[in-house]
Amino acid sequence: MTKRVQEILGWYGSDNPGTRANLARLLNAGTLGGTGRLVILPVDQGFEHGPARSFAPNPAGYNPLYHFELAIETGCSAYAAPLGFLEAGAAEFAGEIPLILKLNNHDLLNEEEDPISAVTAAVRDALRLGCAAIGFTIYPGSTHRNRMYEQIAEIGAEAKAVGLAVVIWSYPRGSGLSKAGETALDVVAYAAQIAAQLGAHIIKVKLPTEHLELDAAKRVYETSRIPRATLADRVRHVVQSAFDGRRIVIFSGGAREDDAAVFEQARAIRDGGGFGSIIGRNSFQRPRAEAVKFLAQVMGIYAGSDAES
Amino acid sequence: MTKRVQEILGWYGSDNPGTRANLARLLNAGTLGGTGRLVILPVDQGFEHGPARSFAPNPAGYNPLYHFELAIETGCSAYAAPLGFLEAGAAEFAGEIPLILKLNNHDLLNEEEDPISAVTAAVRDALRLGCAAIGFTIYPGSTHRNRMYEQIAEIGAEAKAVGLAVVIWSYPRGSGLSKAGETALDVVAYAAQIAAQLGAHIIKVKLPTEHLELDAAKRVYETSRIPRATLADRVRHVVQSAFDGRRIVIFSGGAREDDAAVFEQARAIRDGGGFGSIIGRNSFQRPRAEAVKFLAQVMGIYAGSDAES
Amino acid sequence: MTKRVQEILGWYGSDNPGTRANLARLLNAGTLGGTGRLVILPVDQGFEHGPARSFAPNPAGYNPLYHFELAIETGCSAYAAPLGFLEAGAAEFAGEIPLILKLNNHDLLNEEEDPISAVTAAVRDALRLGCAAIGFTIYPGSTHRNRMYEQIAEIGAEAKAVGLAVVIWSYPRGSGLSKAGETALDVVAYAAQIAAQLGAHIIKVKLPTEHLELDAAKRVYETSRIPRATLADRVRHVVQSAFDGRRIVIFSGGAREDDAAVFEQARAIRDGGGFGSIIGRNSFQRPRAEAVKFLAQVMGIYAGSDAES
Amino acid sequence: MTKRVQEILGWYGSDNPGTRANLARLLNAGTLGGTGRLVILPVDQGFEHGPARSFAPNPAGYNPLYHFELAIETGCSAYAAPLGFLEAGAAEFAGEIPLILKLNNHDLLNEEEDPISAVTAAVRDALRLGCAAIGFTIYPGSTHRNRMYEQIAEIGAEAKAVGLAVVIWSYPRGSGLSKAGETALDVVAYAAQIAAQLGAHIIKVKLPTEHLELDAAKRVYETSRIPRATLADRVRHVVQSAFDGRRIVIFSGGAREDDAAVFEQARAIRDGGGFGSIIGRNSFQRPRAEAVKFLAQVMGIYAGSDAES
Amino acid sequence: MTKRVQEILGWYGSDNPGTRANLARLLNAGTLGGTGRLVILPVDQGFEHGPARSFAPNPAGYNPLYHFELAIETGCSAYAAPLGFLEAGAAEFAGEIPLILKLNNHDLLNEEEDPISAVTAAVRDALRLGCAAIGFTIYPGSTHRNRMYEQIAEIGAEAKAVGLAVVIWSYPRGSGLSKAGETALDVVAYAAQIAAQLGAHIIKVKLPTEHLELDAAKRVYETSRIPRATLADRVRHVVQSAFDGRRIVIFSGGAREDDAAVFEQARAIRDGGGFGSIIGRNSFQRPRAEAVKFLAQVMGIYAGSDAES
Repeated sequence: MTKRVQEILGWYGSDNPGTRANLARLLNAGTLGGTGRLVILPVDQGFEHGPARSFAPNPAGYNPLYHFELAIETGCSAYAAPLGFLEAGAAEFAGEIPLILKLNNHDLLNEEEDPISAVTAAVRDALRLGCAAIGFTIYPGSTHRNRMYEQIAEIGAEAKAVGLAVVIWSYPRGSGLSKAGETALDVVAYAAQIAAQLGAHIIKVKLPTEHLELDAAKRVYETSRIPRATLADRVRHVVQSAFDGRRIVIFSGGAREDDAAVFEQARAIRDGGGFGSIIGRNSFQRPRAEAVKFLAQVMGIYAGSDAES
Repeated sequence: MTKRVQEILGWYGSDNPGTRANLARLLNAGTLGGTGRLVILPVDQGFEHGPARSFAPNPAGYNPLYHFELAIETGCSAYAAPLGFLEAGAAEFAGEIPLILKLNNHDLLNEEEDPISAVTAAVRDALRLGCAAIGFTIYPGSTHRNRMYEQIAEIGAEAKAVGLAVVIWSYPRGSGLSKAGETALDVVAYAAQIAAQLGAHIIKVKLPTEHLELDAAKRVYETSRIPRATLADRVRHVVQSAFDGRRIVIFSGGAREDDAAVFEQARAIRDGGGFGSIIGRNSFQRPRAEAVKFLAQVMGIYAGSDAES
Repeated sequence: MTKRVQEILGWYGSDNPGTRANLARLLNAGTLGGTGRLVILPVDQGFEHGPARSFAPNPAGYNPLYHFELAIETGCSAYAAPLGFLEAGAAEFAGEIPLILKLNNHDLLNEEEDPISAVTAAVRDALRLGCAAIGFTIYPGSTHRNRMYEQIAEIGAEAKAVGLAVVIWSYPRGSGLSKAGETALDVVAYAAQIAAQLGAHIIKVKLPTEHLELDAAKRVYETSRIPRATLADRVRHVVQSAFDGRRIVIFSGGAREDDAAVFEQARAIRDGGGFGSIIGRNSFQRPRAEAVKFLAQVMGIYAGSDAES
Repeated sequence: MTKRVQEILGWYGSDNPGTRANLARLLNAGTLGGTGRLVILPVDQGFEHGPARSFAPNPAGYNPLYHFELAIETGCSAYAAPLGFLEAGAAEFAGEIPLILKLNNHDLLNEEEDPISAVTAAVRDALRLGCAAIGFTIYPGSTHRNRMYEQIAEIGAEAKAVGLAVVIWSYPRGSGLSKAGETALDVVAYAAQIAAQLGAHIIKVKLPTEHLELDAAKRVYETSRIPRATLADRVRHVVQSAFDGRRIVIFSGGAREDDAAVFEQARAIRDGGGFGSIIGRNSFQRPRAEAVKFLAQVMGIYAGSDAES
Repeated sequence: MTKRVQEILGWYGSDNPGTRANLARLLNAGTLGGTGRLVILPVDQGFEHGPARSFAPNPAGYNPLYHFELAIETGCSAYAAPLGFLEAGAAEFAGEIPLILKLNNHDLLNEEEDPISAVTAAVRDALRLGCAAIGFTIYPGSTHRNRMYEQIAEIGAEAKAVGLAVVIWSYPRGSGLSKAGETALDVVAYAAQIAAQLGAHIIKVKLPTEHLELDAAKRVYETSRIPRATLADRVRHVVQSAFDGRRIVIFSGGAREDDAAVFEQARAIRDGGGFGSIIGRNSFQRPRAEAVKFLAQVMGIYAGSDAES
């Protein structure tokens, strides 16, 4: 157990040893094990965006076993997916990589301005499938946000009682926000704070832009001169907003992007004190060999073995 | 136990032996037993469309015993029906054919744009009636879809714990979709993926058309050149969308049709790697002797003993 | 045990002997015992319509003991009422007549377009009061119908497990239907089918009119030339719609009517293969002596000792 | 479904269709499927007598998979074993042969005059392992017999509610009986009666001797001239004692014996109207090829294709 | 994941992926990770024998943290202890080594001829403490053995449902056995079989002597010429008795012994196909540096890097 991992575990003093052991498992797995950084492979896009949009670019991804293999081969810290994808490979790959069961999911077949996900699995499923954590998405900004906060409050407490870790995907969205507002710095920082206050051990947010959405917040950001010019500045502020860095915050890159851009983002996350990335489409939508190389570079950046770093 | 059945059972490694035994029972019953293909007789139309629309074309079908006899005589893999129809014959035909209890049902007496079915029976009913599986309908596209996903998440976990298999009828419908969208290729593939992610062992969808409904998906289908010109192409894509063929996907023909059309469809399902058909109205709405002959031909197609195949 | 009663009990092969014994009790009680026909006295109008509307025409009916006496004296097959009415006389008349506890009830103090009843008693109440069956009302056509179907699915399973019979009052009503549609032949037949699929042993519907409500159904009735000119024709179709006559279907006459009309209806029910009548207001809203005479005539019709039959 | 199987199922009218389906499964499996006769392979001797005494004569039997294979290859009606042996192969052989989970077991490491078995598994285990029935041993004659009767009363009711069949091993033993009394005709007949009264669907007893144990009974046997000179006579009396043959009674041969003796016994069981044999040590303690041949001969006797029959 | 570990996991096909993942964790931890061998540090002697007898020889062992450190530093596969010892260090060492919660314990403050342990913790404790497995002691030979078998049957099923592994300490003891009988070959083999039949994933027994205790068994050992002259022979027979080697069997050395003797035992366990050792007193009752060296040698023997091997 490295000092850094022990330091991080030290932030979770209210949690029982089971939950801390599962956090340790996440922090000690894969290539970045022990560094305090994580790169997680999430594959919930089949449910969230539909199968063709998710897997046609690299049809190997239609097969649930592919993602287990990819996450293991690339040395990811964990693999996160909905019930079906985990059920389809959890026995074959038992004990090979920490699993995160995404407990709620959302599809696009009836798009609404104010989204809410369906709770599609339970804590008992996470136990029978051997998961280290549950994952749950909230949409701050949606009119249904309170319902989601209440769901994770209840489910999170249940998960903690049986020694699981709680990962919250905190994605601002809904009628309360402009499109730009969904990734505005003040909003992302606020979303990270809400997830932390809801008891998340690990928080996943999107990379924030320089934009500020809320008038009341804007004034403070300007008065207090909170730096936000560079992505590293903004990551630093989001991490600060999650209990001054005493909660693990990881960032998603969103849609498929230019590799150089992703590497640049990873450096910014690292330099801003972020804990890592959750990289789905940029991983599984390219051929396996390329994905392996790509993720090795991302992990290299986090491990500090990156030439440009 | 044929190699093919063993291969299929191998996809369900997270399930207990009870559930696997019930899947084996479904795969080993009837004329197609052992081939890895299934033809299931479903008779829930009395509830879904009303008795006269369902049974007047062949009044023998008003009698619940008729459907047990028909399913057994024609060598179907299973008989699926709501509580009442199963209660009315399960004792008389105990052990003669695998039964699937349709746990939720929907009527047409108050048509709504966004449908949801009522949960009309429970897992304990499936056990006392000697069923091999439960069946559950979801309507992706309905504003009520999350409620349905949450119901099957809970009921499915309960069923699996007591060794039953889970069959999901995934029928896109509701205000989120155009009428053509309900059978659009992208939507049917999406519906199959959702059912698989919800933990279905067997997925029932409608045969897809060439139409594409969702703009974001359309672009991918065109860019990735996903073949969709023939029905076999489309079946292949739907099967791929259900975990790359690692979940059993069967297709329904919908309304009563010309026999030649049904046979043509069965050939396309077979050639596209589909696992079979669920044929209700085309079976029980014709005289028994004709139904026997008709289903024998369908099964012949799946068994590969079809002249034209 | 007559052959006819044995034949009827034979339709309920999935039920335990306790439930079958209670069905036998209902079929063997009173004047019509053994004939396979039933006349049931229901007195839930106090709750459903208010006391004065129900009992002022014959104030003896305010007294709960009156209805026990009336049902016994007239040789009814059973007496059905809400919790309070049964509690008020079940001890005094213990063992004298089969009782049916109406488990849900609806008042008129806040009329809604889409009705749902309150569940006002439980299966354990039916046991402690010595009932042979529970009664439950569903309103197909109401936007709340799914809730009602789910309630009876759960309550019905509980009742069957403890050996009680299940009687469903299936009354189409709600925003999905026109006023005429509530008694339209297609709708009443559909309501009978739904009750049967929900697991009812005995189904109570209203007498259907010649009207057809649903467009899709109308076409079938016309194409298949389902006879509906006479009331007997329509009864025959409704009975057929309840599992081809393998479920007990009884009919209510609705509002108070001319005696000759009621007798005419009873003859039609009998000739159409219906299993009897449930006669409330026409019984208890007239002086006792008249009621005795009136019901004797109705029973005479069912027993076949009716001069005109 | 043969007439004979239907006749047998007809004796279990109080059972739900699930239990009847599982009885049908037992009666329709293997070489004797449909004949109304059963040969069951039980392997609980590892627990009951210790591993070396059980498996050293044919060391292949130390391996739990061996017994599944043996039961399947020889066409047995079912395979019965304790939790561990079933867990060790139920997934591999899912759906290949009906399983009976022996819910209680007894070892010899602290021999007592009055034995009682430990309850080593539960009905929920039988469901998750996909069993058709539970098995339970009672020792009439033991001072602990009431406790055993109470256990099976409770467990049996639970099993029946979820559609499982109940097999009772009824082995007279304990301080209430002499050694000879354990297989005395009056005692074995009494043990069969007790098992039947406790609600067993299938009863397993030892083959009775001509000895009579209880004085009060002896007088009746002599007065009533109950034939007991031949084994077939005695089998006939035991079957009669189990509800006049309306419960399935099968017989065990006990310790390893001369083949000719076992065949002679099988003929006597068949001629006396017994339903078959449960043959453990005589099957699995010999080399596989010999066991296959041996059991084929036994089954041939039951099937009536035995030369000497 | 090595081939050997995958082979071993393949024996547990009835278990859910959670349990298999925890078995994998045990098989992949520490110095012997991946070899299919285990050395476990158990420290329940404080409860079983009292603190001074247990810890005075090396007073560092009074401190619960000492044993965590020792197990981790020496590269043990797991650390097993009662509730208190685990609660006292599970947070500090979260995620560093697989833990086994000993769920029942026995003290010496009222010695009985027929022992039974108290159930001092529950499955939910194992979850909150982050354990990979529960441990449970049975005393075959005790008059209370049935109660213990029934406890582990219930607790084991509960543990498996939440994805934990089950370790049974099977220690013959009690009035049914002579002192020499407790480690007699036939008795130890029988004890291993019982634990396996009770559903244990991992079985711990004592090293057997050449003695044979039970007369009926003795005859078989002699007739079948079961080799028992060397310790390796006897280990081989015990492993065979645990489902022909398809269950993990580990051996305890018992009281403190001469190191050379322990190494000799480890070689015999290895050569006889045993899966490893559980070494308590010989580890923690000596100074830490010596213990580290001592366990390294034991593990070297299992790893095959032992000079004499």
